[in-house]
Amino acid sequence: MGEFELIRHYFAAAPCAQGGEGVALGIGDDCALLELPAGQQLAISTDTLVAGVHFPAVCEPALLGQRSLAVAASDLAAMGAEPVGFTLALTLPEVSAAWLKAYAEGLERMASQCRLSLIGGDTTRGPLSITVTVFGRVPSGQALRRSGARPGDALCVGGYLGDAAGALALVLGERQAPSELAEPLLAHYWSPPPQFALGLALRGRATAALDISDGLLADCGHIAKASGVALEVNLAQVPVSPALQAFLGRDAALQAALSGGDDYVLAFTLAPEYLSCLAQLPGAQVIGRVREGQGVTLLDAQGQDITPQQRGYQHFRETP
Amino acid sequence: MGEFELIRHYFAAAPCAQGGEGVALGIGDDCALLELPAGQQLAISTDTLVAGVHFPAVCEPALLGQRSLAVAASDLAAMGAEPVGFTLALTLPEVSAAWLKAYAEGLERMASQCRLSLIGGDTTRGPLSITVTVFGRVPSGQALRRSGARPGDALCVGGYLGDAAGALALVLGERQAPSELAEPLLAHYWSPPPQFALGLALRGRATAALDISDGLLADCGHIAKASGVALEVNLAQVPVSPALQAFLGRDAALQAALSGGDDYVLAFTLAPEYLSCLAQLPGAQVIGRVREGQGVTLLDAQGQDITPQQRGYQHFRETP
Repeated sequence: MGEFELIRHYFAAAPCAQGGEGVALGIGDDCALLELPAGQQLAISTDTLVAGVHFPAVCEPALLGQRSLAVAASDLAAMGAEPVGFTLALTLPEVSAAWLKAYAEGLERMASQCRLSLIGGDTTRGPLSITVTVFGRVPSGQALRRSGARPGDALCVGGYLGDAAGALALVLGERQAPSELAEPLLAHYWSPPPQFALGLALRGRATAALDISDGLLADCGHIAKASGVALEVNLAQVPVSPALQAFLGRDAALQAALSGGDDYVLAFTLAPEYLSCLAQLPGAQVIGRVREGQGVTLLDAQGQDITPQQRGYQHFRETP
Repeated sequence: MGEFELIRHYFAAAPCAQGGEGVALGIGDDCALLELPAGQQLAISTDTLVAGVHFPAVCEPALLGQRSLAVAASDLAAMGAEPVGFTLALTLPEVSAAWLKAYAEGLERMASQCRLSLIGGDTTRGPLSITVTVFGRVPSGQALRRSGARPGDALCVGGYLGDAAGALALVLGERQAPSELAEPLLAHYWSPPPQFALGLALRGRATAALDISDGLLADCGHIAKASGVALEVNLAQVPVSPALQAFLGRDAALQAALSGGDDYVLAFTLAPEYLSCLAQLPGAQVIGRVREGQGVTLLDAQGQDITPQQRGYQHFRETP
């Protein structure tokens, strides 16, 4: 048995690989088999993380294990899907038992937190790269799309923005911060909690939703385009955490929140009749509104247009 | 719009990305959505191909497009699943319009041949690597597993073996051959046709099945282990193509067929009462039998055990 065959056995023995609801067959055959209750659709999303592009080439493997699953799972939450399972395609330059053990522990932690079963994958030799494909289920016709925002809707987000972008200088070792600031920021970078509860609560209520990965303004642009509407963001309502504000100062914290990316927090639009449900959704709040037109406008406290030219993260950095 | 955003739009416009049976939502939102008829299960498999490991770093992108989908789709055929769709996670060191156009053409050709819809994916910068996840459907309980082979069953394969392994020296430019030999061998390497028709015909008949990717003997070992039986392979019955035999000579051709890997031809076991159905399955033939015990034994024409120690491909080569 080759060393990569051993890795497959290693993952097959993980607690998250022992099956779960909807998993008829897991790791070990040519395919996994999923079952879907009548009246449900299967939601599917794929994310690749490349060393030196999406995470530092040298980093804690346990943290990478958490993050590699969390960023993919966030897409399920954004559709209002309930978690079912995932496949893991892991490309490794070499086989290190210590690295694998730590990576698998982090992966297991996030899989357990999200209730996602590992159902299959592939392990190959090459430059470090991870592709996770996630599967969830959602009642037919109830998935949260990007395309339903209507003029008059409120624009909302599911929590603080910018923490992960603010953490990047810490992740890269370019800056340091006292632990009471560094810890919450780094936690959000390495382990952004997929907002499954929020996504489920928004089914039948939100007119549009997505998870913010490219930066608030860029992702609002995706809703605006898909829905054929304009979005207004009120800068004064954009939520930034106390830790981020203390670390960067208010202006840079807002800049990170607007354009930083890697948040994996939901942005969504709500018809006015559902605004009252926000009180039951911890962290969720209104940050603007939908109107007729196109594009995204950023407004200051006086209602002046202060839209920046540069609308956020261009999907990848050459080096983080 | 960044250049990688442009690539996503490029793939979204491909004919194979325009939806198909079972695809409720394709590219463009946080997730794709699949539907599954009542009484069916969804079969899922993931394969990663890394440049310099699974294919030469310098190769025809159109051929790579075909091959990257074909090797993943073969896992669906091996389960007896009907094709539905696939996701494509493409990591590229740089954006070349000519490369992408050719790659997409090859991908499209195989997608059309297999009736697989492109439903989503991710495009990232990094060392060239391709992860394809395929989706198919199979009536509940009818998937072809590896675990049902029983003593007394016949061991069969779906066609010639060893062509792709034989082609490797041609792919790498280490050897040359007249075009009438090179062309069929290279065709099998770059475009192994997933045996969907065979997989469907074997539903309810084969007791076990898989697609041969690691070499006949190694993959027979997977059936033997999963089923708790022994497999006997009769060397004289192992089918090699006229082209392979002319290119390598009979002994080396058989060696490629036994241990070469990359065949993506089905191996399966049939109860004696279904042996007559082989006549309706072009290329399929008996190569041995299942008996009580464990492991794989190779027998010569006199029934002598000539099992080699080295059982095939160790999943990847350091450099092809």
